Amino acid sequence: MGNEHTSFDELSARMAETPFYAWSGLELVRAARGEADVAFDAGPDHVNVQGLVHGGMLATLADTAMGLAVRTELEPGGRHVTVQLDVRFLRPAPQGRIVARGRAVRVGSRIAVAEADVVDGDGRLLARASSTIAVGERRT
Amino acid sequence: MGNEHTSFDELSARMAETPFYAWSGLELVRAARGEADVAFDAGPDHVNVQGLVHGGMLATLADTAMGLAVRTELEPGGRHVTVQLDVRFLRPAPQGRIVARGRAVRVGSRIAVAEADVVDGDGRLLARASSTIAVGERRT
Amino acid sequence: MGNEHTSFDELSARMAETPFYAWSGLELVRAARGEADVAFDAGPDHVNVQGLVHGGMLATLADTAMGLAVRTELEPGGRHVTVQLDVRFLRPAPQGRIVARGRAVRVGSRIAVAEADVVDGDGRLLARASSTIAVGERRT
Amino acid sequence: MGNEHTSFDELSARMAETPFYAWSGLELVRAARGEADVAFDAGPDHVNVQGLVHGGMLATLADTAMGLAVRTELEPGGRHVTVQLDVRFLRPAPQGRIVARGRAVRVGSRIAVAEADVVDGDGRLLARASSTIAVGERRT
Repeated sequence: MGNEHTSFDELSARMAETPFYAWSGLELVRAARGEADVAFDAGPDHVNVQGLVHGGMLATLADTAMGLAVRTELEPGGRHVTVQLDVRFLRPAPQGRIVARGRAVRVGSRIAVAEADVVDGDGRLLARASSTIAVGERRT
Repeated sequence: MGNEHTSFDELSARMAETPFYAWSGLELVRAARGEADVAFDAGPDHVNVQGLVHGGMLATLADTAMGLAVRTELEPGGRHVTVQLDVRFLRPAPQGRIVARGRAVRVGSRIAVAEADVVDGDGRLLARASSTIAVGERRT
Repeated sequence: MGNEHTSFDELSARMAETPFYAWSGLELVRAARGEADVAFDAGPDHVNVQGLVHGGMLATLADTAMGLAVRTELEPGGRHVTVQLDVRFLRPAPQGRIVARGRAVRVGSRIAVAEADVVDGDGRLLARASSTIAVGERRT
Repeated sequence: MGNEHTSFDELSARMAETPFYAWSGLELVRAARGEADVAFDAGPDHVNVQGLVHGGMLATLADTAMGLAVRTELEPGGRHVTVQLDVRFLRPAPQGRIVARGRAVRVGSRIAVAEADVVDGDGRLLARASSTIAVGERRT
């Protein structure tokens, strides 16, 4: 890793260019070195027949937050690809604000490990996640 | 488990009532006892800046297919909740048809284990997933 | 859960009766409600050709500590069975004291989720683990 | 990857030099390109108070078989390190012969993914495992 790290503004710009985040409504709300919080307002479109948010959305949020948390440790223009994702669902997720708080646990030259808490608007823990992420140098 | 199992038509009806599947475009394409295939046409909305389908969508597909595969082993009106989801991403996923082929590996009275292959339209393996699912009797 | 919880002494007695722990040298060093620390002195028998402790020993330590952490939340004589175990290996583990610090993240009536840090004698994080555990009432 | 692959004899020699395998009694019983079977005779030392083989032994067997399966795809003298290990325990494991059948699912230049079935002497499936493995060139 070099001296320069990917900033909140760079991550936000990257998310803005990503069609999937526009479509799914995910937004970066905070980033610091080794950390990234990604939020989502779960509405009537995102629920199952019981009115609870589909676990796939929680997995998506957690994966995104963990990837961006690792990215804050890379030089701008770095590369990260999730290799393995693990999510444990702890509580039913009602509609409303949901935030995944990602953090890099270890960032090596080739492989990083990250974790995330997924919480609702009251800070209740909905899910815990971890991921293994392949990281690479700047390609350009 | 009783003698009656949840059929393709019952699973399809359930998916049709689920707002999340209408919004995200997931559809059941096949079900047999212990198996369920869920498909999705990945388009421009579902990709990252490299034009590849976001891993969260693959995780969502796999989770759905595994849950429904287990559900085929339950009586109609049974209950299933994913407790833990693990996905290994093997290849980049281009736009186009993606199918998750879920199968129940073991269904106990309280806990089930399932696995899924996620493949593209040419049958290339994009991801492998497994899940632990809490199962319960009909509640109504 | 009832009012009575499984104590350090009860867990220690259980470990003492377990042939596997005597053979492998695992010992309970601390327990509190929702927490259990299990230690192991890694010696020349436990290493690979590079002289590093085999990952299977770290997985075993973590699994044991997580199971006992959950058990502290059950009534004496309760039952716990690991259903799924996930371990991320963060650093090479040299010979010497290794401790897995397990904690219960959520204990339901049928399923519990636990996590563990595996650290060396200097407190350096060697691995992180999580597990899904089936729990049951006293059987006798 | 070069043209030469690591053979059964090379893997066996490596296991013979590994103190952990001598101590724990694990042995390679079969290897082919992308596959490795590792066996273990579970005896009175390896069981819990119910007389069932400790899950840590199954995790250890699976991890070993998956690592060696990947190693068959590397040049002799290559390097493999398990980064993440996931095990789902499907059935209680009685004393007796236990075999983990590992196979490489995908071997990249830096990261490999493997899976294993853990079966008893009658071929009954006791556990399923997957792992993410960092692979590298010969270092010496």
